[in-house]
Amino acid sequence: MVKLFWAANTISSASAIALNEGGVHWEGVEVDFSAAEQTKPEFLAINPKGRVPALSTPEGILTETGAILEYIGATMVPELVPADPLQTARMRELMYYLTTTMHVNHAHRKRGYRWAREESSFEDMRSMVTENMNAGCAFLEDRIVGPFFFGDQMTLADCWAFPVLRFLPGDGVEIEDYPNLAAMKAALYARSSVKAIVEMGMVK
Amino acid sequence: MVKLFWAANTISSASAIALNEGGVHWEGVEVDFSAAEQTKPEFLAINPKGRVPALSTPEGILTETGAILEYIGATMVPELVPADPLQTARMRELMYYLTTTMHVNHAHRKRGYRWAREESSFEDMRSMVTENMNAGCAFLEDRIVGPFFFGDQMTLADCWAFPVLRFLPGDGVEIEDYPNLAAMKAALYARSSVKAIVEMGMVK
Repeated sequence: MVKLFWAANTISSASAIALNEGGVHWEGVEVDFSAAEQTKPEFLAINPKGRVPALSTPEGILTETGAILEYIGATMVPELVPADPLQTARMRELMYYLTTTMHVNHAHRKRGYRWAREESSFEDMRSMVTENMNAGCAFLEDRIVGPFFFGDQMTLADCWAFPVLRFLPGDGVEIEDYPNLAAMKAALYARSSVKAIVEMGMVK
Repeated sequence: MVKLFWAANTISSASAIALNEGGVHWEGVEVDFSAAEQTKPEFLAINPKGRVPALSTPEGILTETGAILEYIGATMVPELVPADPLQTARMRELMYYLTTTMHVNHAHRKRGYRWAREESSFEDMRSMVTENMNAGCAFLEDRIVGPFFFGDQMTLADCWAFPVLRFLPGDGVEIEDYPNLAAMKAALYARSSVKAIVEMGMVK
């Protein structure tokens, strides 16, 4: 059985949703960020990068949300990957945008210490987060067939969008300004895959 | 025929190397960053994100290096994707690390304006780049079978590593401190796929 190392209110919910979408039986192991467990030797032995998610498989531990989602799609939940290669490429285009642009922009609100040292820099970074996240939302808004990116069928990109959409209120973005994104968020919350992670306390 | 929009000394070389590895016939279209062509309406019609690479296919335009590389692997150069799903997942783990961690860290040297406004913040960001890039190199160094990530056989991750390894001198990193990375860089330069992009002026 695969084991997912997760922390509340982080990107790790994407991998949990993907597993749940396929009805996969998996074990969750909570990593308590409030106790800085991700920085302790026990967890660094699992993931030396000190981040969640990490997926323990019979053949070893995988890290990076994109790699974990693709592995879930390739080996356990094929229905989350489009059959057509170009549509799969479009899905990956969204996945890379969500992480290299949107998640990185979001991270500048609370994790500026990754890239700078001065409080004045952190403040400067925080001041741009709302603008950057709005730009990201505007970009995504036009790429949604509805309710999910490619229509009624969820893909790995929709699983990944869930935690990113949950960043928005804290980032100062009004999701109601983006009707397609708001509808996608509502459709995600209506899935039993998402209800299950809410019940287990993965999103609060 | 596919058409690759590229700019000199950017991440777009990764996609060109992947195409060349498979002997694919492709057309290159240079986007002149020194003339800010990536910000002009002609190019924004190709990629509204104003970035390279972009790949024009018979079915439409693709963006994001990771999505383009995967599309090349899935449709044109299958030998760049391992047959085993777990090894493919490990390849993707490296691909996501190269972009979300290393490329993002690198970008804080010259593109701090994406995340902040003040010159003092840019200076602060620049001061951490060498340290962050060294940490990334140390992480990668232990994950190389040699000369490429998974041994003698190149994968999409090695194509992507090429431009990232070329960032290092400018980022203040001595690649000689990382023998496996230095050997990988030398092995990449020895490939005819790489020689061809040097000849066309894609790396200078």
